[in-house]
Amino acid sequence: MSNSTSTPRIIAENAVSIPPRAKKSNYPEPFASRMQGREKRALGDFFGLTRFGVNLVTLAPGAESALLHRHSRQEECVYILDGHPTLVTDAGEFPLAPGMCAGFPPDGVAHQLVNRAARPAVYLEIGDRPPGDEASYPVDDLAAEQADDGRWRYRHKDGRPY
Amino acid sequence: MSNSTSTPRIIAENAVSIPPRAKKSNYPEPFASRMQGREKRALGDFFGLTRFGVNLVTLAPGAESALLHRHSRQEECVYILDGHPTLVTDAGEFPLAPGMCAGFPPDGVAHQLVNRAARPAVYLEIGDRPPGDEASYPVDDLAAEQADDGRWRYRHKDGRPY
Repeated sequence: MSNSTSTPRIIAENAVSIPPRAKKSNYPEPFASRMQGREKRALGDFFGLTRFGVNLVTLAPGAESALLHRHSRQEECVYILDGHPTLVTDAGEFPLAPGMCAGFPPDGVAHQLVNRAARPAVYLEIGDRPPGDEASYPVDDLAAEQADDGRWRYRHKDGRPY
Repeated sequence: MSNSTSTPRIIAENAVSIPPRAKKSNYPEPFASRMQGREKRALGDFFGLTRFGVNLVTLAPGAESALLHRHSRQEECVYILDGHPTLVTDAGEFPLAPGMCAGFPPDGVAHQLVNRAARPAVYLEIGDRPPGDEASYPVDDLAAEQADDGRWRYRHKDGRPY
């Protein structure tokens, strides 16, 4: 099967057959190590999509989706497929279950998923990729901005680089 | 719970508790009637997201997701939650099952999901909303372009309006 370019491209796949990302996290230490129990399969990237990401994420017991954060521009949405992660926000905590979804407009509540259950949690995360995005972290000494090349640059809150 | 604006906003919900769209289809007749077995819940819109849509779609037995189509600019992705819809494309047909996903870069294969099974099919569809998008329909006498106001305008292939 092929699309209109000359490169044959797979157009349907079992999501769990798509290899997880080798690099666990872009965060600097000590934050990267906290993401060891998180596994992401980049479904959208696999199919050649570029303007938004659709990731199949598995959180082992005890793992977290990200540091508590909010984006200045990116829109985010999650849909729970399995397990019972907790949505932790700076406006309260909400237990999630399969079939539940959550959405995060830019500059809204800070948020993260934390898996406090004994079984893995599995969900889809969707986010667009607007230029000039920034992420802020209410709890951790971290600030992030996206450079023109799309890469995230991390600083301490006082401006010092990591 | 509220975000940084003054309007309280729900940030997590059971997807099936979000009401389905009242209007079944934007297509002109005779195509709109073909979409009667399709039900869409606009999850992303519910949470105030604007730049991409995340819809929970149910296809009754016999129903189809859309006419066979491709977009000039929109990126699309689907993730099957339940049931066994068939991915119909102009490059062949592919049986889908829960846990499978498919992605459609712009100007790729024309595609639609058709539920030939005896049970409903349920899936998430994700698509961004780039300006100036057009949709083409290899099988049906239809051409669509998005106006500056975001609305789709439909014509016959010879240019006559519907």
